[in-house]
Amino acid sequence: MKLIRFGEIGQEKPGLLLPDGTSIDASGFGEDYTEQFFATDGLTRLKAWASSNAATAPKIPTGVRLGSAIARPSKIVCVGLNYIDHAKETGAKIPEEPILFYKSTTALCGPNDDLIIPKNSVKTDWEVELGVVIGKKASYVEEANALDYVAGYVLHNDYSEREFQIERGGQWMKGKGCDTFAPLGPFLATKEEISDVHNLRLWLTVNGKTFQDGNTSNLIFKIPFLVSYISQFMTLLPGDVISTGTPAGVGLGFNPPIYLKPGDVVELGIDGLGSSKQTAKAFV
Amino acid sequence: MKLIRFGEIGQEKPGLLLPDGTSIDASGFGEDYTEQFFATDGLTRLKAWASSNAATAPKIPTGVRLGSAIARPSKIVCVGLNYIDHAKETGAKIPEEPILFYKSTTALCGPNDDLIIPKNSVKTDWEVELGVVIGKKASYVEEANALDYVAGYVLHNDYSEREFQIERGGQWMKGKGCDTFAPLGPFLATKEEISDVHNLRLWLTVNGKTFQDGNTSNLIFKIPFLVSYISQFMTLLPGDVISTGTPAGVGLGFNPPIYLKPGDVVELGIDGLGSSKQTAKAFV
Repeated sequence: MKLIRFGEIGQEKPGLLLPDGTSIDASGFGEDYTEQFFATDGLTRLKAWASSNAATAPKIPTGVRLGSAIARPSKIVCVGLNYIDHAKETGAKIPEEPILFYKSTTALCGPNDDLIIPKNSVKTDWEVELGVVIGKKASYVEEANALDYVAGYVLHNDYSEREFQIERGGQWMKGKGCDTFAPLGPFLATKEEISDVHNLRLWLTVNGKTFQDGNTSNLIFKIPFLVSYISQFMTLLPGDVISTGTPAGVGLGFNPPIYLKPGDVVELGIDGLGSSKQTAKAFV
Repeated sequence: MKLIRFGEIGQEKPGLLLPDGTSIDASGFGEDYTEQFFATDGLTRLKAWASSNAATAPKIPTGVRLGSAIARPSKIVCVGLNYIDHAKETGAKIPEEPILFYKSTTALCGPNDDLIIPKNSVKTDWEVELGVVIGKKASYVEEANALDYVAGYVLHNDYSEREFQIERGGQWMKGKGCDTFAPLGPFLATKEEISDVHNLRLWLTVNGKTFQDGNTSNLIFKIPFLVSYISQFMTLLPGDVISTGTPAGVGLGFNPPIYLKPGDVVELGIDGLGSSKQTAKAFV
């Protein structure tokens, strides 16, 4: 299944993207895609609902805004420098174990919402990433069973303000959690939709020019290892997101670096996970 | 007012600690102390409810477990090295601007719950801190108005696994978000309960021996500045927590360092914000 959420900001309704490309309103199912939904085997219930109701459910008109593919989770855990080519372009060493940081959940937004460049920002950058959505509570999970804890996958743009992240003292999170810095979607693809999650092309363009063009086959730390590893340090809750890192081609990697300015259009996509598009706007 | 939450884990009910020291069940008020509660001026409504109902509400029997003083917030933002004496004991430079990191909200627990030492941990440490609870949505707030966005204050023990935090690659958060690493309470004191938040003694003992004994007058970055500063990087939501840093006397600061082992009893308190007590247990 492909889960979407649609409607005005803060009033999103659940929906489904069907195999024939139509989108249906799943409000009749009666639940948003929250922690509670995932924790109570909502995917199985949603599938049962869809098998009886998909044909007759209202279609979503084209042009309706998409929200984040899932409701606000308890946390978004990101993995830094998880592609060798990206680690090299930033001048960092290849990590011996995963580098983790959080992205504020208030950064979450719809896949095609405007990117708001924060006040006083001059170094807003992009990062196409594969997001993993947790399906059940995960604490001290073994790598061999780790995929049992995964609900599915989602496209994520891990926007990053490099001055806030690197030059403002201390930890990266200052540059990661600004509002609109986590467009998530267009849809959550459940696990069975993706035959090999470690062989997906991921790409990103700015104003039509390709900047990132990688493949998840180049992930340094693979998804089962990441789920297991992160669950040693914290309990992952149903609906939580792990963003697995970005390949080469971010603005910081160029000499001189290239950063976003109002009017720039960022498009990105991952095989099987659709594409998204954000237009940069100045904060007003 | 002093807000408490009580009952079994995950089933906490709202309550109030009255000026005469009795605790009452505020279930009749009908709301938990969530983001929604703070966002809709719940404190004013709770005060009105209490003025009519406090005298007749059921008393909470002694010995009932206290939960975290507020429901799980969207985020816990912590300030690192915000007391000069603590920065010095860790060998760090005095920060030029606040160092920020997140604590996982899954770390939240009741003020007197057991501290669970994580699997494979040998460096679990303590940090008594003053927590600030946000009362309304805060984005790009001016320092002069920042206290308008504060609901109140709460005692917090920012437990920290120093190996996970410092020696496992990258960012501090690995050592900050383990389950039970954020006992919050016993109560949330609303702003008017605290006459000068920048002149409160805060202390911590382990097995009865004093390790931390500081005063919020020594905060490098004061609370209005912190609220304003953090709100430049992210939107703070009602119910979010800012933990303002710890004074000298953490285990890491000793030579050799002192870390917690099963059976150790940690007690801590802040003037006007009560005290809490955690017993360290091994993960089983």
